[in-house]
Amino acid sequence: MSKVDLAKYDNSWYDHGPFLRRLVWLIIGRIIINTYLPIPAKFKVSILRLFGAKLGNNIMIKPKVNIKYPWLLEVGDNTWIGEQVWIDNLDYVKIGANVCLSQGVMLLTGNHDYKSQTFDLMVGKITLADGVWIGAKSLVAPGVICQVNAVLGAASLLSKNVPANEIWSGNPAIFIRKRIIE
Amino acid sequence: MSKVDLAKYDNSWYDHGPFLRRLVWLIIGRIIINTYLPIPAKFKVSILRLFGAKLGNNIMIKPKVNIKYPWLLEVGDNTWIGEQVWIDNLDYVKIGANVCLSQGVMLLTGNHDYKSQTFDLMVGKITLADGVWIGAKSLVAPGVICQVNAVLGAASLLSKNVPANEIWSGNPAIFIRKRIIE
Amino acid sequence: MSKVDLAKYDNSWYDHGPFLRRLVWLIIGRIIINTYLPIPAKFKVSILRLFGAKLGNNIMIKPKVNIKYPWLLEVGDNTWIGEQVWIDNLDYVKIGANVCLSQGVMLLTGNHDYKSQTFDLMVGKITLADGVWIGAKSLVAPGVICQVNAVLGAASLLSKNVPANEIWSGNPAIFIRKRIIE
Repeated sequence: MSKVDLAKYDNSWYDHGPFLRRLVWLIIGRIIINTYLPIPAKFKVSILRLFGAKLGNNIMIKPKVNIKYPWLLEVGDNTWIGEQVWIDNLDYVKIGANVCLSQGVMLLTGNHDYKSQTFDLMVGKITLADGVWIGAKSLVAPGVICQVNAVLGAASLLSKNVPANEIWSGNPAIFIRKRIIE
Repeated sequence: MSKVDLAKYDNSWYDHGPFLRRLVWLIIGRIIINTYLPIPAKFKVSILRLFGAKLGNNIMIKPKVNIKYPWLLEVGDNTWIGEQVWIDNLDYVKIGANVCLSQGVMLLTGNHDYKSQTFDLMVGKITLADGVWIGAKSLVAPGVICQVNAVLGAASLLSKNVPANEIWSGNPAIFIRKRIIE
Repeated sequence: MSKVDLAKYDNSWYDHGPFLRRLVWLIIGRIIINTYLPIPAKFKVSILRLFGAKLGNNIMIKPKVNIKYPWLLEVGDNTWIGEQVWIDNLDYVKIGANVCLSQGVMLLTGNHDYKSQTFDLMVGKITLADGVWIGAKSLVAPGVICQVNAVLGAASLLSKNVPANEIWSGNPAIFIRKRIIE
């Protein structure tokens, strides 16, 4: 028999923010951000700022981007957020300048304690420093830090921290080679 | 030259169910289940039951869940079906109680015989016992059985059966460690 | 400090085609192709041909197919394009006859030069010969050629060329066995 009992799951300690803000974001985010409508990136940026995102200048936001909570998002100048990127930020996601999140990337901040009968929620911040590139369809796990200029190959799973100027790839991602920028 | 001839593909032996039911489900499922509209899980459950799904109590169904045929779906009490989960159930999918399917999971029941010129359809049931957790963006292959409390890590590919209380991960997924619930 | 400067990114050498064609395609493609509406495959094929796709007879196009530029797409007779397939064809994608792209497949033709400060765009054609099968949720990388009857397993990452009648799988995909068609 299983001892897991999801009826006893209790994430009441987690602060989702005001209900009204979440509800309005759910609707507006769906209409303006998580859509294929050709809405200018500047307008998307304005909307995200209204909901508390700390965004730099010249940010590119492609269609069908799925952001859980804009008030837990920080993005630097010139950064690209690709088509169908999913920023599932139950915890703070800090993205630097000149970062590229390619199409289909998922940044995952939520986890569960599989040792507890109540499957307790655990969250972990994600930090991607300046110049980082996350390849298409890759998944970055909760708690991960990528230092300056780190690269993750396509379709990879990253659950470790990546030092500066290193290229990692695979599932699970491992060190491949140094990144040398000319 | 290729010998494969998809013009001769014949899945007429496969019983998709009445055409009208499929057509109505295609429309209703898209409007009520496979959507970001904030529709209460209880209402989603009622609709799925109308189309033949055997569902327990207290089931959570997140947005954008894609279910092929509700009449081939069984889910136990307290189970969570995460955002963008894709249950591609051409064959029966039986999910126990207190199961968590994290966001972006795919349960795949269809396959093809690559040895046949006509690329014959092959289907395989999926069974996930009580207390199972399938991690975000993972794919479970046709025919797989996960015993009680089995865990699959994120972004994994599972094509083998997982014994009770074991944690598997990777692509292809392999045994990682025992799950001990306190 | 990062040397990467995406403000200096310059893809002006890349010919996206006339602006008006792209705009109209963006709208029409979303309404007719990248949708769950039950639109007949024949009508989808006609629309894609209008936008320059070279398509054979008896092609199956399932719901929610995402095609970047139809004018860079060629598909042979009897080929299947599965649900949620994403053909991100910044470069030419040539798909033969009797090919199966299973659900959730991504064909990726765009890349970036991570050695350049300006993160230069690089594109690579993809060629899938007759009889090829790409498994569900797999990603095919820029420049890849799959010879006749090649098979790629589900949830795989393919960045190498696959010889005829070989089955590859995994992340990264490796040779598994020969495909023998009876």
